[in-house]
Amino acid sequence: MIYFDNAATTSVDPEVVRVYTALLKEYGNPDSLHALGRSSSRKMEESRRRIAEMIGALPEEIIFTGSASESNTLAIVGYALANQHRGKHLITSNVEHSSVRHAMEFLKQFGFEISELPINEQGIITPEIVKEHMRKDTILVSLMHINNEMGAMNPIGTIADVVHENPTCAFHADCTQSFAKVDVPFEKLDLMTMSAHKIHGLKGSAMLLKKKNIKLMPIIQGGQQEQGLRGGTENAPANIILAKTIRLALDRQQQAYAKAEALRDYLTEELSKLPGFQMLSPKDSVPYVMSIAFDSMTSQVLQNALDAKGICVSAKSTCSSHESGANPVLLKMGKTQKQAEHSIRLSFSLDNTLEEAQAFVKAAKEIINAYGLPL
Amino acid sequence: MIYFDNAATTSVDPEVVRVYTALLKEYGNPDSLHALGRSSSRKMEESRRRIAEMIGALPEEIIFTGSASESNTLAIVGYALANQHRGKHLITSNVEHSSVRHAMEFLKQFGFEISELPINEQGIITPEIVKEHMRKDTILVSLMHINNEMGAMNPIGTIADVVHENPTCAFHADCTQSFAKVDVPFEKLDLMTMSAHKIHGLKGSAMLLKKKNIKLMPIIQGGQQEQGLRGGTENAPANIILAKTIRLALDRQQQAYAKAEALRDYLTEELSKLPGFQMLSPKDSVPYVMSIAFDSMTSQVLQNALDAKGICVSAKSTCSSHESGANPVLLKMGKTQKQAEHSIRLSFSLDNTLEEAQAFVKAAKEIINAYGLPL
Repeated sequence: MIYFDNAATTSVDPEVVRVYTALLKEYGNPDSLHALGRSSSRKMEESRRRIAEMIGALPEEIIFTGSASESNTLAIVGYALANQHRGKHLITSNVEHSSVRHAMEFLKQFGFEISELPINEQGIITPEIVKEHMRKDTILVSLMHINNEMGAMNPIGTIADVVHENPTCAFHADCTQSFAKVDVPFEKLDLMTMSAHKIHGLKGSAMLLKKKNIKLMPIIQGGQQEQGLRGGTENAPANIILAKTIRLALDRQQQAYAKAEALRDYLTEELSKLPGFQMLSPKDSVPYVMSIAFDSMTSQVLQNALDAKGICVSAKSTCSSHESGANPVLLKMGKTQKQAEHSIRLSFSLDNTLEEAQAFVKAAKEIINAYGLPL
Repeated sequence: MIYFDNAATTSVDPEVVRVYTALLKEYGNPDSLHALGRSSSRKMEESRRRIAEMIGALPEEIIFTGSASESNTLAIVGYALANQHRGKHLITSNVEHSSVRHAMEFLKQFGFEISELPINEQGIITPEIVKEHMRKDTILVSLMHINNEMGAMNPIGTIADVVHENPTCAFHADCTQSFAKVDVPFEKLDLMTMSAHKIHGLKGSAMLLKKKNIKLMPIIQGGQQEQGLRGGTENAPANIILAKTIRLALDRQQQAYAKAEALRDYLTEELSKLPGFQMLSPKDSVPYVMSIAFDSMTSQVLQNALDAKGICVSAKSTCSSHESGANPVLLKMGKTQKQAEHSIRLSFSLDNTLEEAQAFVKAAKEIINAYGLPL
């Protein structure tokens, strides 16, 4: 089995599994006032403190959630509803994750107006276009850091500067694909989403960074947990292990980047020798994500043929994998209908090897020869 | 360590830990179309099918969530926003869990009107009082099945009948404290909340039963997951193990009930011999939860003294444990201020033994003798 779908989810680090399993055997509700509850609470707050330290934030700025989608919804819906007295205009892009898109859509019923900025041919949103669309009543700009389908990286540091020229506007970055993969300018972000299962952690475990001065309204109602911003008994074992998950990923960031770069460069060179190969990811993309196409073969045929050979890749963002048709992100980047219908995505992690890349090239060659339409 | 705080959270069943840990070593995003994704998705859908079968529902009526608070919020906020064209009146009680209370509160900003019915001296909401407050524009009634602080059980089957006399009104029952502890009339409920960690399952794993004809709006935005009603990469390992968690709990329901009854009866008899003992749980309460008080000692002093002897109990619902003062649920039941300030809650599971109950009686006796105020 060759797994080139690390942008969808990653393997859980064995060390994370080991410690987490031990934690499952202890129990106690972190909000209980007795010894077991206190022990659970102490460990969770220690994890929060360590995470804060690693990203240069305050412990009270870390909100544990259950998924990046939840973090995104809390950041957008929670922020918009809590700050609507200051304005009802929001800015986002036309290639955001479905959780961001639908959070924006959800807010329209309450009178919010959304500007959906188009990406350019490099797949990014420029600071200039953000500046053009900023208004006095703009209260939030929400953009992804690294695009999950092509690997294009928005210049979120410079964009944050533009956003903050309006002192009543906040900036949210969805860093699901960038956290612990590239450097994130945490100090410039008011709200930031990350998810554990994209960096070899647990599913059902994620975080929202919310700077101290930012007001939110909870979207999951409940008790006093997470400063009243996220109801529900805390998933203490998952929250405790998140600190270790993040530390392991940050420690390995350089190594993972270099590995992804080597794989991307090797594959680009070798696949370019095959007929009708096209690299669709823009030139400045991060190496973790590679969008490619072959003229002679649609996404679906290629993905199925690879699957039959035990190679996992994806054709579109996993969260909308069951929708049919061309890849909408590529179309918005100015690619042709054919390119968008032929694209597949390869995404890498430290688990992958050069031998796997070699096997992929061999498999691709066989598939093109066997099933490729004449060009 | 004696753990009498099973209404807050329970130990994770070793069999659940074992299978879940094995699942963590597999991976794959259930929405990925390749072999690993399909395998994950297949197991998750099998779990959904088995859960549905156990509670007499359809697989598509099972929505996996991350906590009972999330299920409650989705049931109430999600239902109210999706059905507001039919009316904007909601009914609940004055002793609901904070997630229900705050979900109702949240809806007020959108023009919803809430009737908060008072419990009677038995700690319950009667079908009669629900009937009295039903209006033509009532679209949802939300009540807990078993009260988490006293163990009083609402007659939700009969209440459901009253609610359904209005064909456009739905009934939501928060069964967090009753699921797999007593029989739940699933067939009469339109929406039902349960949580895994209250029945020896994982934290961060819960479910909302949503009957086929019931329309909801998602509160966590995202992709196609859970019929578009709950965004975020599914926590596949947790969702897969939920079927086993539920089966184990249902298999042991009779045994757990009998055990709790034996413990409650023994404790009631023995503690009654101590000076100033009072049973605060109403007569018809379920045996899992026991609210008691001693005249000579406030909740906090007693809880701390028990804690020092390694005995875990709670004074109030864990989700509002950090609020100070008297137990509000007891006050609403007509108990005195003093009773509400002196109450502690014992809650049982199959983990507990008669020896623990004996040790508790001994400890209580010592504490009362050492620290009890003269009566």
